Amino acid sequence: MDVTVDPTLYLWLNLVGVFVFGLSGGLAAVRARLDIFGVLVLAAVVGLAGGIVRDLLIGAPPATFRDSRYLAAVGAAGLVCFFFGPLVGRLQRGVLVFDAMGLAVFCVIGASKGLAYDLGPVQATLLGAITGIGGGMLRDVLLGEVPVVLRHELYATPALAGAAIVAVADAAGSTSDVWLGVGAAVCLVLRLIGLRYGINAPTPPAGRWRVPPRA
Amino acid sequence: MDVTVDPTLYLWLNLVGVFVFGLSGGLAAVRARLDIFGVLVLAAVVGLAGGIVRDLLIGAPPATFRDSRYLAAVGAAGLVCFFFGPLVGRLQRGVLVFDAMGLAVFCVIGASKGLAYDLGPVQATLLGAITGIGGGMLRDVLLGEVPVVLRHELYATPALAGAAIVAVADAAGSTSDVWLGVGAAVCLVLRLIGLRYGINAPTPPAGRWRVPPRA
Amino acid sequence: MDVTVDPTLYLWLNLVGVFVFGLSGGLAAVRARLDIFGVLVLAAVVGLAGGIVRDLLIGAPPATFRDSRYLAAVGAAGLVCFFFGPLVGRLQRGVLVFDAMGLAVFCVIGASKGLAYDLGPVQATLLGAITGIGGGMLRDVLLGEVPVVLRHELYATPALAGAAIVAVADAAGSTSDVWLGVGAAVCLVLRLIGLRYGINAPTPPAGRWRVPPRA
Repeated sequence: MDVTVDPTLYLWLNLVGVFVFGLSGGLAAVRARLDIFGVLVLAAVVGLAGGIVRDLLIGAPPATFRDSRYLAAVGAAGLVCFFFGPLVGRLQRGVLVFDAMGLAVFCVIGASKGLAYDLGPVQATLLGAITGIGGGMLRDVLLGEVPVVLRHELYATPALAGAAIVAVADAAGSTSDVWLGVGAAVCLVLRLIGLRYGINAPTPPAGRWRVPPRA
Repeated sequence: MDVTVDPTLYLWLNLVGVFVFGLSGGLAAVRARLDIFGVLVLAAVVGLAGGIVRDLLIGAPPATFRDSRYLAAVGAAGLVCFFFGPLVGRLQRGVLVFDAMGLAVFCVIGASKGLAYDLGPVQATLLGAITGIGGGMLRDVLLGEVPVVLRHELYATPALAGAAIVAVADAAGSTSDVWLGVGAAVCLVLRLIGLRYGINAPTPPAGRWRVPPRA
Repeated sequence: MDVTVDPTLYLWLNLVGVFVFGLSGGLAAVRARLDIFGVLVLAAVVGLAGGIVRDLLIGAPPATFRDSRYLAAVGAAGLVCFFFGPLVGRLQRGVLVFDAMGLAVFCVIGASKGLAYDLGPVQATLLGAITGIGGGMLRDVLLGEVPVVLRHELYATPALAGAAIVAVADAAGSTSDVWLGVGAAVCLVLRLIGLRYGINAPTPPAGRWRVPPRA
């Protein structure tokens, strides 16, 4: 199931995803009082790192780094955050919705690329989730924080669900690209529900606090 | 000296190593109060990242990510830690022994793979150590800590010793796979001695505290 | 514009750059009270990681890891810091000057290698900056700090300027290697000016503090 959706639509979806992810990175950098270079790097990291890690994992040359349009998208996102940080911050709920769209786009694209590189369905699902989540994880590590996706919120689950739909449809023999849309929609809806109702992924059962410290 | 040990034994050693490393990651995640996704990711990171970094460094496509059995091993380790974290924590000494076995397996496998990719003996030794240590380092970075292997304990030295034995035997012209076993045994014994007697790697001489802070 | 400067000069420049970057990493490790292994790893990370990330991004096998001479250079830097940390620390201004030389060498080499791998001028410029900056960023992440290059100082800008000169000269059709020297000189001068006068890269405009915290 190669990505044979309309190439222009595919490119624009990708660019929008990269841009809104870039906003998320740039905003975090402004909040952490980084300088102009830090804001641009964080925007680039969140927008591009998931795809770069994906490509390294399947042994493909990282594609986004070579494409000026993606670099321009994260650069624009970084500059917007640098100059209009407070404004973007006030539109935070809107940014979260856009971020959910980015997640939806990235998880199905990542899964699809994994299938094109002959990964099995489980691996392709994981690859899709990594594509969606990797940039945000690296953002948090660079800011000295434990990645928020590992601690709470419903962020990884929607990405896994969206990617799994693409992988299962492929395993079931479907060659229709409509599953890309279905996967993205499921991811988006789950993420928005999680945001709206403040749902977190489950934590270990209550006995966990009794884990003794590292010897 | 390609790895021509019995393939079934080789696979099982590897799977056990990945699983116990996964326990180490999952347990650290439960202790840091991560959610289910965080526990699974940390298990996967400790179990697989060392091998993935090794493969990236020698330009090989990351092998473990493609193999469902390794993914299943780290997934199982993560779930065990999520549901039985306190129990695993009480068995901590046992986990450390298993972790030492994982280290022993990974350092000789890493060195051996480096030699198969025409690395020199020094590089193969380093590659073996990276294979054994990389996952734990990334675990600590994701948890916002300075990697414990860089600070104290006798962890890197056993891995370097085990890997060096494989590399030196190869440089000396031996084609016997018995050196894989010797290297793993030396690594294991050194690590267990270090654990038993609380030996740390040396720190800089006492004058170090007079290093002025960064200008 | 392939690197056709005198190979011996090229090698020595590179080795000196790797060594002084290694000093920077080893010194940070001594200051953070890491053990001998931590000091050596930090020296290797700062000396080699920028080039390794560069090679991964362009799909080339990491070159420095295979070359014993580079490993020897970072090993020597680490040992010097381990045994003579306070001395190196007192020579800190001198180390910063050498570090600026390393930055100058790495940014033009990185850009030049990017051009040799058919990157566009913007990408080659970024690649040069990543080569110069990547090791220091990873050093700070391993020490649990937000990378200093993202927060203040004039460090990224000189690297971008030096790399850009190489990329623009190539785009303008010049095949003269003199631009490597010009780029390195511009980077070095800018960095030294920034150090001398304590210049920082600009931070977001004053309104930034009103960015609301993450929802």
